[in-house]
Amino acid sequence: MGFSEATRVEHRGGTWSAAIEPGWDIGGNANGGYLLVLAARAMALATGSPDPVSVTAHYLRPGKAGPVRLEADAVRVGRRFATATALLLAGENPLLQTVGTFGDLTQAEGPERVDAVPPELPDPDDCVRIHPDSGKDPSFMSQVDLRLHPEDTGFREGRPSGEPRVRGWFRFPDAEPVDTLGLLLAVDSFPPTIFNARLPVGWVPTLELTAHVRARPEPGWLRCAFSTRFVTGGFLEEDGEVWDASGRLVAQSRQLALVPRAKP
Amino acid sequence: MGFSEATRVEHRGGTWSAAIEPGWDIGGNANGGYLLVLAARAMALATGSPDPVSVTAHYLRPGKAGPVRLEADAVRVGRRFATATALLLAGENPLLQTVGTFGDLTQAEGPERVDAVPPELPDPDDCVRIHPDSGKDPSFMSQVDLRLHPEDTGFREGRPSGEPRVRGWFRFPDAEPVDTLGLLLAVDSFPPTIFNARLPVGWVPTLELTAHVRARPEPGWLRCAFSTRFVTGGFLEEDGEVWDASGRLVAQSRQLALVPRAKP
Repeated sequence: MGFSEATRVEHRGGTWSAAIEPGWDIGGNANGGYLLVLAARAMALATGSPDPVSVTAHYLRPGKAGPVRLEADAVRVGRRFATATALLLAGENPLLQTVGTFGDLTQAEGPERVDAVPPELPDPDDCVRIHPDSGKDPSFMSQVDLRLHPEDTGFREGRPSGEPRVRGWFRFPDAEPVDTLGLLLAVDSFPPTIFNARLPVGWVPTLELTAHVRARPEPGWLRCAFSTRFVTGGFLEEDGEVWDASGRLVAQSRQLALVPRAKP
Repeated sequence: MGFSEATRVEHRGGTWSAAIEPGWDIGGNANGGYLLVLAARAMALATGSPDPVSVTAHYLRPGKAGPVRLEADAVRVGRRFATATALLLAGENPLLQTVGTFGDLTQAEGPERVDAVPPELPDPDDCVRIHPDSGKDPSFMSQVDLRLHPEDTGFREGRPSGEPRVRGWFRFPDAEPVDTLGLLLAVDSFPPTIFNARLPVGWVPTLELTAHVRARPEPGWLRCAFSTRFVTGGFLEEDGEVWDASGRLVAQSRQLALVPRAKP
């Protein structure tokens, strides 16, 4: 089941329903980007605007495979942008609270000034494919086609690079084009940057994720880079950039995660 | 009227009320950080948790001085963290939709790894004071004590530095300590970074602002740095860092703003 089908949302009689499909999980808990896409689809429907310009999700509980429902409300529908909230629930348990501003990015233009370049990556076939068949990667990784920069895969062999950074290519495995909702999955699909730091950190639950979408991506592989500068106060941020095949920045993301110590 | 008094929120019978005080505006529209603090106070009350760990605001309409009300709801109250939403309204007009996760940062600790240093700044008295008395700065600047790095003030003389960056010191003018809610004001108090780029940009309305608070600041001046790397697609981001007197990163922020062309 491809991305669009696995994230479909139905709207009937003022309520939205969806399903957390099996196989989109990491150790039984649905990927955070996947949950965000469900909420973003409901917000897009509630606002009547297709593209998420800025969306934020606060993660309340892990999501397990099964039916979910959504409460989505348009807060304001303006001429260019519309803002909505959505709450994703399993039964009576809230999983995700989101807010987002949506628009139509077909005509995304303005003055340009970019002080950054896309990450340099070897060809996808010279990168390391992240896939459950490896025996090292979670089942979620069969839903995406991830190719990691060979310098950033040391954590998989117990030899973290020492630099909290992960770079790589992203696409869908079935050639489905990545749309602006797919970008919300892309920014949360890569292994945590902190796996490449030499810190006693076992797992990093996401508290909050914000993604900005700047443009609709051109078809083709996406270049992605994630890094962390501040592990402090019991938290870490992970900053992401996604560039399309034309060399344009299409999304920026930041998430705040907890830094629990590894179990002794 | 100091920061705490100017941002007080009253809770009676399930609704919250507040006032946008005069003098906290830029050209008649209330500062965005100031509006965010009103909503954050309501969310802190709704959750029973004092410190904003991660808050996001989507700006819907400019706020004018006068009474406002807030609809705040706790979405989930957990053991360590609690999440709420708040909508700030003037009459029936929504101004601001927010979501936030709150906690108690008295004991913010964990493994430390920081790949950054506080911005180097001349002493506050050797920096440029930003204040309405200058004839160049908006009335809001009398509510905060801002001292800008002399290299970053060129825009005030019509000579932007060419680098979209603004660095400086922040405190309250009346020696009121900056608490974690005050940090939400600090991250939106400085002149826009884009004023220092050489681009035909007249004004930059904020669409969305997210702030992460990592720790309660020590008393004293805060070192702040704001920068922009991506002006593209009709949007720009502005990234902020706030460091306290002990040299600790206490807040990180990112906002997404629109880039309208200057009027011809």
